[in-house]
Amino acid sequence: MTNTPVALTLNAGSSSLKFGLFSIGATPVAMAVGLVDSIGRTPTLKASFGAGMPPLGRDLTPAEASDHKSALATALALLRQHFPEAQVAVVGHRVVHGGPSYDGPMRLTPQVMAELRRLSPFAPIHQPHNLAGIDAAVAAFPDAVQVACFDTAFHRSHPWVNDTFALPRDYYDKGVRRYGFHGLSYDYISGELNRTAPLIHAGRVIVAHLGNGASMCAMLGGRSVASTMGFTALDGLPMGTRTGQIDPGVIFYLVQQEGMTIDEVRDLFYTRSGLLGLSGLSNDMRALEAAGSTQANEAIDYFVFRIRRELGGLAAALGGLDALVFCGGIGENSRLIRERVCEGMGWIGLDLDRARNAAGDTVISTDMSRARVMVIPTNEELVIARAAKKVVDADSACAAGRPNVRNT
Amino acid sequence: MTNTPVALTLNAGSSSLKFGLFSIGATPVAMAVGLVDSIGRTPTLKASFGAGMPPLGRDLTPAEASDHKSALATALALLRQHFPEAQVAVVGHRVVHGGPSYDGPMRLTPQVMAELRRLSPFAPIHQPHNLAGIDAAVAAFPDAVQVACFDTAFHRSHPWVNDTFALPRDYYDKGVRRYGFHGLSYDYISGELNRTAPLIHAGRVIVAHLGNGASMCAMLGGRSVASTMGFTALDGLPMGTRTGQIDPGVIFYLVQQEGMTIDEVRDLFYTRSGLLGLSGLSNDMRALEAAGSTQANEAIDYFVFRIRRELGGLAAALGGLDALVFCGGIGENSRLIRERVCEGMGWIGLDLDRARNAAGDTVISTDMSRARVMVIPTNEELVIARAAKKVVDADSACAAGRPNVRNT
Repeated sequence: MTNTPVALTLNAGSSSLKFGLFSIGATPVAMAVGLVDSIGRTPTLKASFGAGMPPLGRDLTPAEASDHKSALATALALLRQHFPEAQVAVVGHRVVHGGPSYDGPMRLTPQVMAELRRLSPFAPIHQPHNLAGIDAAVAAFPDAVQVACFDTAFHRSHPWVNDTFALPRDYYDKGVRRYGFHGLSYDYISGELNRTAPLIHAGRVIVAHLGNGASMCAMLGGRSVASTMGFTALDGLPMGTRTGQIDPGVIFYLVQQEGMTIDEVRDLFYTRSGLLGLSGLSNDMRALEAAGSTQANEAIDYFVFRIRRELGGLAAALGGLDALVFCGGIGENSRLIRERVCEGMGWIGLDLDRARNAAGDTVISTDMSRARVMVIPTNEELVIARAAKKVVDADSACAAGRPNVRNT
Repeated sequence: MTNTPVALTLNAGSSSLKFGLFSIGATPVAMAVGLVDSIGRTPTLKASFGAGMPPLGRDLTPAEASDHKSALATALALLRQHFPEAQVAVVGHRVVHGGPSYDGPMRLTPQVMAELRRLSPFAPIHQPHNLAGIDAAVAAFPDAVQVACFDTAFHRSHPWVNDTFALPRDYYDKGVRRYGFHGLSYDYISGELNRTAPLIHAGRVIVAHLGNGASMCAMLGGRSVASTMGFTALDGLPMGTRTGQIDPGVIFYLVQQEGMTIDEVRDLFYTRSGLLGLSGLSNDMRALEAAGSTQANEAIDYFVFRIRRELGGLAAALGGLDALVFCGGIGENSRLIRERVCEGMGWIGLDLDRARNAAGDTVISTDMSRARVMVIPTNEELVIARAAKKVVDADSACAAGRPNVRNT
């Protein structure tokens, strides 16, 4: 593996950094994926190096991940140790917000960076971390190509009725729209469906990405037509600590009648609500399933109820349903949630096979089910690596062909 | 009609006052219904006095309806002129908010009035008008029984999962809940279904109350299990000037990034959005249908799309659909909206009969449609009059039976 050109993928959350190293031969293959978590608090490091290799996990010293910059340095040191010959030719970044126009990955230029900074007010909690990650990667790999992959890009195929709110037009024009998020995950699932079940892919599919963040996407022919998330990553399904759908009048009430500041309300909605708020216990579905307390069970009830309601709403946007796909930490691992979402959903064509669901099969509906129910582990890192490789390939083709292109 | 005891119904909006006069024999019958509109601006008066009588309509002088009190005096003068012998035995009031506990009409006592005042922060735009109307009626008819009928009461049968938001529990405990509104209208429709189509009434029904305010209600066995409106009358469907469903993150953005005050945002969401905001033209569906401009058509597209999406969501709450009922000004009068809501909804069992829809029949689905589609003109005033009569009857029975009751 002498001087092997590789792709590095970076996915910076508010207090975490996911990273991946991919060979970029004919098709990207993961050499390592890892996670620095709890940055700035009590950081930890996890990494895996493919089948047959023992996974790595250890606590970090505070100094090893005091912020995103030192977390990246720690991750890179680990990768250099395992892959001393690897040459990072391209770095792919997950960026939460690509605004109304970016409908695919973008090679990062000063112009694109300026545009992404301009979009920060749309995602003030996430976008600055993403951009700091890019700055750190540029400093570490000044010669590498930098590519941004947007969570919003996959949803830019939404029809106008699902891209707008019912506000005066000038708000739409200045960017107050239903962007939708988790686009890298949906992009991966769409690709997997196309590869393994092309007839389903061509039809009406709802994907439920259920993790600590959660949303659902309605796809027609593999393209997004609607999502439960809108302008921010707060709307739609309840999440670990986020409210999901909530009457905007609640904000007016809390500020005007209860005297809360807008910052306090935002903090409440983002960090103390959702499963944590309802259960009074945890934002982690595994903990709630294990707890068995009334409040924990009610939090699960609410989560399931809202998923079912959105399932009906998105089916209406599709004109019916050919398949429901679960993914994300909860979607891939909780048989209870999958079972309860599908319970009594025969009217919409879902007939779950409990044994298959319990066994963790890919197809978990019965053979008689009108709509297929599937579980597909998502892989956002691979989507980033593929996009990064594509940009590099296009660059090479372009460089090789430049004189011809210039002369035609 | 010498000294006939009658029921007066009052329905005070922010700038309007609907009134009705009902005989209270075995079953209440409308003697007159009317409306004072544009109170405090350029007020108008409309009234009708039953079949065969010419309807009345005229502009009022500003002094005749400078506020709700003078508007009530004007309405009462008209009623006294037409029904000099009528004795108002009971006044029934539409009150927007009955809080978490009132699940039916209440005789107004000082205790109940105090509780309704306490609820004003939950409906700051509507509740004070309702209470001012009650005060004016008490002054005008000090000997009459006063009864409050709540827009929220019909929805108190909601299961917890559709009564709560995903907030910490103490917010639910202090009243931040999904109340639902338009309950008097849904109550009427439920009664009409029970009377005319008992098998449908016993099943899974979605009622779309589409007027300048608009919401939808899912009923199981005639009782509400879910609604598109939540804590305030802002959520759910887009309306004449209200946003309907909107990402709460939009508020944080407008305040924190755009520098709007919370009052400005509330004003925007309540009075400049919805059909008016999207069309840039009008909050009136008749005007939009007549306009035919791109923006007017898009406003209609959005209205229809959100109704369809909520239709799917509410069907999920019901586990399928046996009937869809349209009511309210738009629901009763716009064949276009009804047709477009039902278009391509075969997957949910709806098969509209275009000829029946155009003819304005009560049942507008085909005979083969799995779910029935109906149009039922709603009658909130009659629901108030019936409730008022019931309270008076219970009083009489109680007064007559008091010694016996006391002695048992």
